[in-house]
Amino acid sequence: MDISKRGQEIQPSPIRKLKPYADEALERGIHVYFLNIGQPDIPTPQPIMDAFHNYNEKVLSYGPAQGFLELRQAIAGYFRSYDIPIDSENVVITIGGSEAIHFSFSAVADPGDEIIIPEPFYTNYNGYAAFASVKIVPLTLRVEDGFRLPPTEEIEARITPRTRAILLCSPNNPTGTVYTPEELERVTAVVKKHDLFLIGDEVYKEFVYDGGTHKSVLEYEEIKERVIVVDSISKRFSSCGARVGAVITWNEDVYQAVLKFAQARLCPPSVEQKAALAAYQMGLDYFQPVKEEYQKRRDVLFDGLKDIPGIVIHKPQGAFYIIVRLPIKDCEHFVQWMLTDFHHNQETVMVAPAQGFYCTPGRGKDEVRIAYVLKEEDLKRAIVVFKEGLRKYQSLFL
Amino acid sequence: MDISKRGQEIQPSPIRKLKPYADEALERGIHVYFLNIGQPDIPTPQPIMDAFHNYNEKVLSYGPAQGFLELRQAIAGYFRSYDIPIDSENVVITIGGSEAIHFSFSAVADPGDEIIIPEPFYTNYNGYAAFASVKIVPLTLRVEDGFRLPPTEEIEARITPRTRAILLCSPNNPTGTVYTPEELERVTAVVKKHDLFLIGDEVYKEFVYDGGTHKSVLEYEEIKERVIVVDSISKRFSSCGARVGAVITWNEDVYQAVLKFAQARLCPPSVEQKAALAAYQMGLDYFQPVKEEYQKRRDVLFDGLKDIPGIVIHKPQGAFYIIVRLPIKDCEHFVQWMLTDFHHNQETVMVAPAQGFYCTPGRGKDEVRIAYVLKEEDLKRAIVVFKEGLRKYQSLFL
Repeated sequence: MDISKRGQEIQPSPIRKLKPYADEALERGIHVYFLNIGQPDIPTPQPIMDAFHNYNEKVLSYGPAQGFLELRQAIAGYFRSYDIPIDSENVVITIGGSEAIHFSFSAVADPGDEIIIPEPFYTNYNGYAAFASVKIVPLTLRVEDGFRLPPTEEIEARITPRTRAILLCSPNNPTGTVYTPEELERVTAVVKKHDLFLIGDEVYKEFVYDGGTHKSVLEYEEIKERVIVVDSISKRFSSCGARVGAVITWNEDVYQAVLKFAQARLCPPSVEQKAALAAYQMGLDYFQPVKEEYQKRRDVLFDGLKDIPGIVIHKPQGAFYIIVRLPIKDCEHFVQWMLTDFHHNQETVMVAPAQGFYCTPGRGKDEVRIAYVLKEEDLKRAIVVFKEGLRKYQSLFL
Repeated sequence: MDISKRGQEIQPSPIRKLKPYADEALERGIHVYFLNIGQPDIPTPQPIMDAFHNYNEKVLSYGPAQGFLELRQAIAGYFRSYDIPIDSENVVITIGGSEAIHFSFSAVADPGDEIIIPEPFYTNYNGYAAFASVKIVPLTLRVEDGFRLPPTEEIEARITPRTRAILLCSPNNPTGTVYTPEELERVTAVVKKHDLFLIGDEVYKEFVYDGGTHKSVLEYEEIKERVIVVDSISKRFSSCGARVGAVITWNEDVYQAVLKFAQARLCPPSVEQKAALAAYQMGLDYFQPVKEEYQKRRDVLFDGLKDIPGIVIHKPQGAFYIIVRLPIKDCEHFVQWMLTDFHHNQETVMVAPAQGFYCTPGRGKDEVRIAYVLKEEDLKRAIVVFKEGLRKYQSLFL
């Protein structure tokens, strides 16, 4: 009595699989700086908390499958404040960005179809590709190039008769890259020429640094009907546990398919949608201090790491991640060792081995992803501990 | 640029598709008694509301993929209070019973595999089967037989080399049937003999009337490793909008597969899990008055309908639904007509055409599902209006 093949084959979350070692370190009294997952320490805005505290329906009932109209209107308004003419009828509320990915994959691709994604990429795309029996075709980027997109020919070389879409995540998790208009135009031209969909994962839209602005794939009029944006409040409003996301599309067929998928799971959480509505009602001013805080952290992390002998590093322009190549052959072993065998004054650091962000076998073994989700003081301390651990690891194993 | 085949083919929710006609009736000032969906009017228990009001974490952060340990322990404790020895390690918290169905289907079946389900069945099984590319093989039951399960040979006749599981929903949505130990033994023997899984949808466990008790598929020791139970707080605690469910299994391979599926979507909603915990902490005493209320409603509905000339009806033993055959050829037309063309003193009734609960083409066209989710006074009034509508419809169309 075997379980299903997909149940056997779906990979465990590479970000979470080292968690037990961290738990053991904590049990030994070691303080662990968690730079391994994108869980911000920014306080969840008070209007969100107030929405929970003020919730007062008599019956916590089902809402509409596509989400509450008020929230869909608020999200549409958010896009319109960026001059992107979204209406509530272009928005389906999803259970986190995760479900938005799942619905998008399922709406454009059938089992065996392919979606091209620049790697390294957010690992959970793998989970949903497995769930949807869709094949991810990686377009490998390199830290030496600052994870810039390759020339058009290299993108086109990945296209087969089964290709259904290209997915771009910008600002990027895990690289911190923000695609330039030139890069986006290169991809939109390919999408148009080869009759594909373009899925834009733009959940880090607000996190662009150095005065830069985010260019959305929704801003390309000529591929308007081909674009699906995956959105979420998790990072935007430091509300990862709320599980409120959205699919944004002008394509009516895609919208109807996503709506039918949504009907199958009845509705997103009702109270959390009211919390999300309260968050959007804060307006865009909320983001400026948050962005400044992350930019400061980015600078602290980048400046703290860049002089490590043998490191290959590029300065992220957005989100709150960086991928660096370390002068270490097996970063998974290093990350584990930091938790099991190392501490510096009872402190250690957990980062994410980058291998899980690649789909091409062997890639990323010498890289780690670091999330700058802690406040400056903690981050500075974590960098000291990380460098100390790296030095010791090298002295032991190299 | 077509969307995916699955996006085109997944059926819209048959329960929800007539909703626009109801909205139009409401706009015309007609009062609509909604007996079409399982949205109870029982107030959500105060401890759930208190959990929202008292939520006070600084950061609404990700929780564990499998759900908070405290909630998993509380759910395990709930089963142990029924002498079913579940531990927290046998529980994965899901985003509603919906996700529990999805995960269970995906854990036992690969694309093209088959799951046998007695029909009429809960329509959302169709959605998740489509999502998981799994084929539902219906085992047709009949209202004349009180929707009892057929002899063993008829069940076995549905088994093919691709069969992976049988799903039993008891107490049943949409029929209200509670399977007897004899029926369950018949199925467990088939499951064992043919090396299958048994998925038990037991979300209505607390709703068994006339002093009867619910027998869980978890109580069959000899198929312990084959059983997966789909659970939810939606109906149990009148909290449909919370989206908190669970997969319960002793099978370690199934558990690990479900855990990996769960990791791909990160975590269930955090605050709603705390609300669910508060609900379980109320203990079993909470259910008695709720059960009495539903039993009263069942009696009111059954007694109100049973004398309709030409009706075929059986008395439900549990849940809060009844399927009746009406002396009408096309119940979907009738349901729609009740919303668009009929009112009795500015009131009408919405029920669910039963066709959507059947997978076999043509079945259920002359049946409707009625959910007794309104309080006695409203239900009595709704019955008067329903009978008046039926009488008028027959005079017009028969």
